Amino acid sequence: MSELRTSITDGYYPDKILIRGYKIDELMKKKNFVDVIFLTIFGRLPTEAEYRVLNSILVSCVDHGFAPSALTSRLVIGAAPEAFQGAIAAGILCMGELHGGAIESCAKMLQEGVARAEKEGKSFKEIAEKIVHEYWVEGKVIPGIGHPFHKVDPRVDPLFEIAKEAGFPAKHVELLKAIKEVMERDYGRKFPINIDGAIAAVISDMGIDYRLGKAFFIMSRVVGLVAHVYEEIKRPAMDPIRDMARSKYKYDGPPERSL
Amino acid sequence: MSELRTSITDGYYPDKILIRGYKIDELMKKKNFVDVIFLTIFGRLPTEAEYRVLNSILVSCVDHGFAPSALTSRLVIGAAPEAFQGAIAAGILCMGELHGGAIESCAKMLQEGVARAEKEGKSFKEIAEKIVHEYWVEGKVIPGIGHPFHKVDPRVDPLFEIAKEAGFPAKHVELLKAIKEVMERDYGRKFPINIDGAIAAVISDMGIDYRLGKAFFIMSRVVGLVAHVYEEIKRPAMDPIRDMARSKYKYDGPPERSL
Amino acid sequence: MSELRTSITDGYYPDKILIRGYKIDELMKKKNFVDVIFLTIFGRLPTEAEYRVLNSILVSCVDHGFAPSALTSRLVIGAAPEAFQGAIAAGILCMGELHGGAIESCAKMLQEGVARAEKEGKSFKEIAEKIVHEYWVEGKVIPGIGHPFHKVDPRVDPLFEIAKEAGFPAKHVELLKAIKEVMERDYGRKFPINIDGAIAAVISDMGIDYRLGKAFFIMSRVVGLVAHVYEEIKRPAMDPIRDMARSKYKYDGPPERSL
Amino acid sequence: MSELRTSITDGYYPDKILIRGYKIDELMKKKNFVDVIFLTIFGRLPTEAEYRVLNSILVSCVDHGFAPSALTSRLVIGAAPEAFQGAIAAGILCMGELHGGAIESCAKMLQEGVARAEKEGKSFKEIAEKIVHEYWVEGKVIPGIGHPFHKVDPRVDPLFEIAKEAGFPAKHVELLKAIKEVMERDYGRKFPINIDGAIAAVISDMGIDYRLGKAFFIMSRVVGLVAHVYEEIKRPAMDPIRDMARSKYKYDGPPERSL
Repeated sequence: MSELRTSITDGYYPDKILIRGYKIDELMKKKNFVDVIFLTIFGRLPTEAEYRVLNSILVSCVDHGFAPSALTSRLVIGAAPEAFQGAIAAGILCMGELHGGAIESCAKMLQEGVARAEKEGKSFKEIAEKIVHEYWVEGKVIPGIGHPFHKVDPRVDPLFEIAKEAGFPAKHVELLKAIKEVMERDYGRKFPINIDGAIAAVISDMGIDYRLGKAFFIMSRVVGLVAHVYEEIKRPAMDPIRDMARSKYKYDGPPERSL
Repeated sequence: MSELRTSITDGYYPDKILIRGYKIDELMKKKNFVDVIFLTIFGRLPTEAEYRVLNSILVSCVDHGFAPSALTSRLVIGAAPEAFQGAIAAGILCMGELHGGAIESCAKMLQEGVARAEKEGKSFKEIAEKIVHEYWVEGKVIPGIGHPFHKVDPRVDPLFEIAKEAGFPAKHVELLKAIKEVMERDYGRKFPINIDGAIAAVISDMGIDYRLGKAFFIMSRVVGLVAHVYEEIKRPAMDPIRDMARSKYKYDGPPERSL
Repeated sequence: MSELRTSITDGYYPDKILIRGYKIDELMKKKNFVDVIFLTIFGRLPTEAEYRVLNSILVSCVDHGFAPSALTSRLVIGAAPEAFQGAIAAGILCMGELHGGAIESCAKMLQEGVARAEKEGKSFKEIAEKIVHEYWVEGKVIPGIGHPFHKVDPRVDPLFEIAKEAGFPAKHVELLKAIKEVMERDYGRKFPINIDGAIAAVISDMGIDYRLGKAFFIMSRVVGLVAHVYEEIKRPAMDPIRDMARSKYKYDGPPERSL
Repeated sequence: MSELRTSITDGYYPDKILIRGYKIDELMKKKNFVDVIFLTIFGRLPTEAEYRVLNSILVSCVDHGFAPSALTSRLVIGAAPEAFQGAIAAGILCMGELHGGAIESCAKMLQEGVARAEKEGKSFKEIAEKIVHEYWVEGKVIPGIGHPFHKVDPRVDPLFEIAKEAGFPAKHVELLKAIKEVMERDYGRKFPINIDGAIAAVISDMGIDYRLGKAFFIMSRVVGLVAHVYEEIKRPAMDPIRDMARSKYKYDGPPERSL
C-alpha cells in the first residue's frame, strides 16, 4: 500500500507541530492570523503586499446581513441546537455558484481571458467583446458583474485601490473592467462590478489558482455565520420566517382526495 | 408578523455596508482581519490585549495533519469535486465533542467551577477535587486534558504566556491547572493540558461565553481544510485510504445465504 | 495495523455484492425497499409485523410542508444549484433535537423509564409521576408531547393502531400515555402526543435502540427534501423569504460610527 | 410581498396532513413507502410498473461496504458523536459527480442523445458514435460505464430485466448499450455498464427528469449510512484509518525552519 502524503503539516511528534516547516509556537507568538492563512495554503509567508490584499479580501466578505447562508445557519441552530458545527456547515453549503461561487467562475473566466489575449495577441477590449458574446450565445450570466440591490458595491473600489497600492499588475482587473464596459454599451445601462468579481480579478492578478476562489469567501464569511448563530442562540430572530413558512404559505397542489 | 432583527450588519443600502456600525471600506483599509473577527462577533473592536490573544488562538489550531476533519474534507472533494463548499462543510461536521468540541465543554466546566468557587468561598484546589470526583462518578472524561500522542502540547504554554503578558486574570487557567494536578495525583501519571483546554481557559478568562467554544476552532481550522482540499485537488493523497477501505476490510457478518 | 471491519456488506468481488449475506440481485427482484432497510440496519429480514410498523413510520414523516429542513434545503439549492447533495445534506442538518430529534430523546426516556419500572417494581403511573417531576425540576421539556399547531397529531393514533394490530407489546406506549396524563392533570390543559413521541414509543416496543431514533426521521424526511428541492428547481418558492430577509429586517445594532 | 407556495403538502390544520391531497393516516395504513416516495416527488401514485422499477432502484444502491460516503459518515460520528444527523449529512456530501452523481450526468447525456436521434432522424448507433467522439475530444469521461473493481456490476442486468418486464420502452437503455459497444470497439477491451448508468437509462425510459438523478442514490444510500453509523457507534471500525492517518503519513513539505 502506498503512503498518505502531505506537505502542509508535520505534526506527529511528542512535543512539536510544524506548519510548512515553522514551529506552531513561534507562529503563535510572532505572526498574524492572515500571515498564517497565506502560509498554510500557499506554503510560504506572504510579502507585505500579499498580506495587505489578502487581509482586505478577508475583511470584505465577513458579513452581509440576512444573506442565504446566514438564514440557513440560523434555521439550523434553531432546529438542532446541540450541534454548533452543523449550523456553520449548513451555512457554508450555501456558498455555491450564486452566493460567493462567482469568485471561482469569474477568476476562471479572467485567467483564461488574459491567457487568450496574450496567446492571440489581442487587446483586453477585443477579448471582452468575445467573452460577452460567447456568454450571450450560451445563455450564461457573466459572473462578477451586477448586484441585486447595490448600485455601487462599496467593497470594490477599496479593494482595487489596495491591490494597486500594493503594486500588483492589474491585467485581470483591466479585463473585468473592459467586460463591464462592453456590457454597459450593449445593454444600455449600468452594471456595477460586485465584490465577487473584484476578488476574482485581484486574486488572479496575485497569481492565485481560480480553483481556490470559493475558499476566500468561505474563510471570511464563516465569521459572519458564527456571529449570526451566536446572536440566534442569544435572541432568536428566525421566528417571523418560521411563522411565515408554517402558516402563510399557499398550497397549490391537488385538493383533498381519497385513495 | 413580527420582524427579523439583527445587530450585526446594516447592509441594505445602494452603496453602503456597515458592520457593527463601521463602514466596510474603512475596515478593509484600516483594520486587520482578527480585529474584524472580534468586532463582528462581539460588537466592538478588541483591545490590544484581546487582539493578541485571539490572534494566537486562531493561529494555534490552523492545521494538524491528517486529523479526522482533514481526512473527511479530502474524501469528500475526491467524490464530489464540483462542490468545494461541500468538502469544507463536511470537514466542519467533524468538529464535534471529540475534535475541537472540548473547548466548549471545558469552558463550561471552568466557568461553572469558578462561579462555584466564588459563590461557595472555596479554593480552586477544593473545586478541582470536586470536579474530578464528579466526573469520575458519572463516568465522564474531563475535557481539555490529555492527548493521544503529544506528551506536551506545544501550543499550550505559549498561549498561557501570551494571555498572561496581555494581562488577563488567570482564574480559569488556574482552575484547569488545579484539575490537572488532582488527576495526576489520583492516577499517578502525567496529564498534559491540551490546546482545547488551554483555549477554553483563556477565553473564559477573557469573559467569553462558553457557547462560542467550538467557533474559535472552526474559524481557525477552516484554513487547514482549505489547504487540504486544495492539496487533494492538485495531488490526491487519499488513494491509500480508499484502496484500503475498498479491498482490505474484513467482512465479519453472515455468510452468503438465500432468501 | 489492525483491520477495518464491517458486518453489513461483503462487496469486494468481481461480480457479486452481498447485503447481510443476501445477493443484491435477489433482493432487487424479490424484496421490498422497506424489507431491505430493516435488513441493512438490523442484519435480518423483518417479520411481517415489523415490516408493517416500519413501513408506516417511514410513511408518516415523509413531508410536512415548509418545515425548517425543507426551508433550509430550498435556500441552499437556490444559492448552490451545482450540488443537489449539498441541499439535501443541509436539510438533514436541521434534524436535531427540536426537529425530529425528540424521537431519540423520547425513546431514551421511555426505555430508561420502563427498565426502572421493572427494576423497582413500580407502575408506569408512578414512573410517569417521577419523570414529569424530574424534568420540571431540571427545567427540561418532556420530549414527544405537544405540538406548535396540531391539536391532534393525525399520525399518532394510526401508528399506535398499526403497532397494536401487529402484536407488539405496548409498554413504552403505555408509559408515554401515562406521562401525557400526568402533564395534563398538572398543567390543566391538553397535551397531544406528537409523531416523534409515537415513533419513539413504538420503536421502543419493537426493541430498537434509542440511538437510532433520529435515523427513522432522516430516512423518511429525506424524501420530502428531494421533493422540495426538485420543486424549487422547477419553480422557485423562496423568493418571498429571500426578499423579506434582505430588505425587511430591522437593524438594531450601533448607529453608523467612525474608526 | 408575494407568497410562499408549494404543491407537495397541505399541512397547516389542527388535525390533518395531506400529502399531494391524500390524508397521511390513509397512506400510513394502506400504502407502501415506495408508493409514497413516488407520490411525494411526482404528485401521483405510481403504476404497478413504476412501483416495481423504483423499488429495485432503491434496493440496488442501499450499501456497498466502505465506499467514500460510508467512510466519511463513520469518521464524522467518531469525532462528533452528539450529532447523528451531522454524520449522515457528511456522507451525503460525498454523493457528487464521482460517487452516485453519474446518474445525473449519464441521464442527461442519454436524454439529450435520444432527443437528438429523434430530431435528426439518426440511429442510436450513429448517436453513440458522436457521443463517444465528443467526450473524447473534450477529454471527458463517459458517465455510467466502467467500474474500479466489478468486472460485471451484478445490479445492472437485474434492473434492466425488471424494467423490461415492467414494460417500459428501452430507448435510453438501448443508447447506453450502443455507447458501451462503441467504446469496447474503439478501446479494444470490455467496459461494463455500472449501476449509475443502468439507473440513469431506466429512469430516463420512465420519463424522469435527469435533474433528479442524484436523488435516487441519496434516498437509497442514506440507509447504508445509517447502518454504518450505527455499527460505528456499537463497535468502532475506523481506528485503523485514524491510526494510519495520524502516524503513518509521509510529510514531504519544507524541513524545519525559523521565522
